[in-house]
Amino acid sequence: MTADARSFVIGDVRGLSPQIARLVSMMRYVRETTLDAVEGLSVEQLDDLHDAESNSIGGLLVHVAAVEEWYQSATLFGRELQPEDMGEWGAALDLGERARREIRGRPLADYLARLADVRARTLAELAARDDAWLEETAPFWGGRPANNHFKWFHVFEDELNHRGQIRWLRARAVRREP
Amino acid sequence: MTADARSFVIGDVRGLSPQIARLVSMMRYVRETTLDAVEGLSVEQLDDLHDAESNSIGGLLVHVAAVEEWYQSATLFGRELQPEDMGEWGAALDLGERARREIRGRPLADYLARLADVRARTLAELAARDDAWLEETAPFWGGRPANNHFKWFHVFEDELNHRGQIRWLRARAVRREP
Repeated sequence: MTADARSFVIGDVRGLSPQIARLVSMMRYVRETTLDAVEGLSVEQLDDLHDAESNSIGGLLVHVAAVEEWYQSATLFGRELQPEDMGEWGAALDLGERARREIRGRPLADYLARLADVRARTLAELAARDDAWLEETAPFWGGRPANNHFKWFHVFEDELNHRGQIRWLRARAVRREP
Repeated sequence: MTADARSFVIGDVRGLSPQIARLVSMMRYVRETTLDAVEGLSVEQLDDLHDAESNSIGGLLVHVAAVEEWYQSATLFGRELQPEDMGEWGAALDLGERARREIRGRPLADYLARLADVRARTLAELAARDDAWLEETAPFWGGRPANNHFKWFHVFEDELNHRGQIRWLRARAVRREP
């Protein structure tokens, strides 16, 4: 059975090698649920700061796109991006004070376009790789080895972490900024 | 390269079929990060309710164990558990009011023991399955097909969602209940 956006199947995807297909099946499901979690939010709700140390939902959405862009550059193009390489949204990589100050006042469509743009490049590049590439290992956090499979797993596991926060923040933002 | 708890590799695991090994590599990494997120928390911090609709960190930990137990029963033993089948912690499956009321006053070690107990059974049972089992498909949410690979992906993607909430809640609970 082939994985598609409307079934709950982790499996083969036309045009992708077997392991990449399973990884992409997971990435797609995760992204659908992230998009569900922000559907219909207003600018005020996207900007809402629950407390002085919270990130806004908008900030978290840019973070998700920025993390994917960082791993895209590092694993697909061999270049570790600096926040300043990432244009006006580089602050989102680290979140925190600068992201709270700078990422504001944008409609949901802007965030969704950024996510879709990064994702389209990811999928095009992964389609040109194979399972042997996914297994390639290099020194990573703390110098310990990580393979590309782990790095792309990490991209979506970080997204899920923030999706959990977005769901929690959304329930409160919708009450604070109706 | 073989995956182990101290490397960042999604790959083969001794005694597991190739796809199950990759799934288990992910489940292990996720669990390590969940345990990191709750390390050292006191009973008061585990019980802290950020607001009237928040779950406590303790409640979320039992939820994580309960979800794994539910999918274990459904996919490995062919029986969909009801909350009342899950002993005193059945409330955790649905979270909400009953979980807030009933899951309190327990030390971290109790939650960790429950998580470890469920996980040990999961790993033993998965070791006895193969990749063909992982691909088996049955009607699931809304009657749409899901394979076992998706169901076990969902177990850890739900854990990650709540790990994100636990990290957020921990930062506040540690200030509220020092």
